[in-house]
Amino acid sequence: MRPLTSEAGSAPIMVLVRPQMGENIGAAARAMLNFGLEHMRLVGPRDGWPNPAAVAMASGAGPVLDHAGVFADLPGALADCDYVYATTARARGLVKPVLTPEAAMDEARALIGAGKRVAVLFGPERAGLENEDVARANAIVTIPVNPAFYSLNLAQGVLLLAYEWIRRTGDTPLRQDGLAGTDFASAEEVEKLGDHLEDRLDAAGFFFPTQKAPGMKLNLRNMLTRWGLTRAEVQTLHGILRQLVRGPR
Amino acid sequence: MRPLTSEAGSAPIMVLVRPQMGENIGAAARAMLNFGLEHMRLVGPRDGWPNPAAVAMASGAGPVLDHAGVFADLPGALADCDYVYATTARARGLVKPVLTPEAAMDEARALIGAGKRVAVLFGPERAGLENEDVARANAIVTIPVNPAFYSLNLAQGVLLLAYEWIRRTGDTPLRQDGLAGTDFASAEEVEKLGDHLEDRLDAAGFFFPTQKAPGMKLNLRNMLTRWGLTRAEVQTLHGILRQLVRGPR
Repeated sequence: MRPLTSEAGSAPIMVLVRPQMGENIGAAARAMLNFGLEHMRLVGPRDGWPNPAAVAMASGAGPVLDHAGVFADLPGALADCDYVYATTARARGLVKPVLTPEAAMDEARALIGAGKRVAVLFGPERAGLENEDVARANAIVTIPVNPAFYSLNLAQGVLLLAYEWIRRTGDTPLRQDGLAGTDFASAEEVEKLGDHLEDRLDAAGFFFPTQKAPGMKLNLRNMLTRWGLTRAEVQTLHGILRQLVRGPR
Repeated sequence: MRPLTSEAGSAPIMVLVRPQMGENIGAAARAMLNFGLEHMRLVGPRDGWPNPAAVAMASGAGPVLDHAGVFADLPGALADCDYVYATTARARGLVKPVLTPEAAMDEARALIGAGKRVAVLFGPERAGLENEDVARANAIVTIPVNPAFYSLNLAQGVLLLAYEWIRRTGDTPLRQDGLAGTDFASAEEVEKLGDHLEDRLDAAGFFFPTQKAPGMKLNLRNMLTRWGLTRAEVQTLHGILRQLVRGPR
């Protein structure tokens, strides 16, 4: 059995309550592992455990299933958990805080940082969590779906919560400008390209009338620096200039 | 043909580039509609169009397919778009900004607010977008998946971007404390419950030794107000007190 790469308690535990189809359990394991979540628990899986259909669907996420805890009832699955979220589309008259996935995973991050063990409950495919399940949670998580159209399946629900967990851990840069390892041209290389361009255009009589030439040249220089040219692009542009002047072979 | 509920241009257009399986096109339509996105475009769908497998899978999201634009090539699909994001797992040496889904949908919201038309490209199931496709986009979106395990399918990619779109439109409250319409007990009702509790405990000799009674009573009162009791819970607690004192029938 391949070991997991993260410790129990370092991220939320995904608890599937009375899941029906093995395929969906396997798909949930994949959804989790996409975002680095590895700790799954199963409460009363309908078709027993282990489940070959789950294993077949899980594919590379097999270790998540291998290490999944299996429990006969929900209180058993939650015995060592400090804070529990129940994902449910409909709030059903139970008085509990209702959070978005974003707010819940934000809170979960703080709780886990304080050494608490956090679980997220997902109900069976058709009916979702029962009121009896939700009553054992500290808070409700509701995914903000279109009220006129709700068709999230079990793995998609797990996916969105796992995604929010990763998103809220904050170690992903929001935006990388340019790709890592891009070989940008130096200022000197851009300068020399500008010289080349200016020389060629000068020879072609481009800078006319003469009194406008300084302004035109300044605009060209500005344009070249604004582009954020790579070294390869500078070489390409040199070649273009040479070829345009030389004309067809 | 049922009409769509949103105008073209009011949200990002999801563009599926050379999608293969009809089922995945239908699943993408469902993923979109979960978060209120209705405008889909298809570029060169492998199995032609319309596609019965797509319609069967889309189920209630059929109108998204009915209204989908179908194009022979990507430039045609993007002709009226002002800003284009390409979703791709791997940055491939093209010099472009790389954004998280969050940052991209944030930007998209600002662009759409300024009257721009925004598109998001998704590649074919197996290979993803080609460099030729990505070169036609203004920016790259990369979903922050586990580098050791990537198994997002087409509909899941669409789902995460659609979810980010809705999340960033900001009209979902992050947290609702208590459910709407909860009938909380008034301070007077809680006070009377406290009186009832205190009387019963007094009669049972609970407040002992006498000099500690004031502090014990204060703690009980504080506990009752801290709970945020509903009217129904107050009635339940009155009943519990009565029954405990009365004993078994």
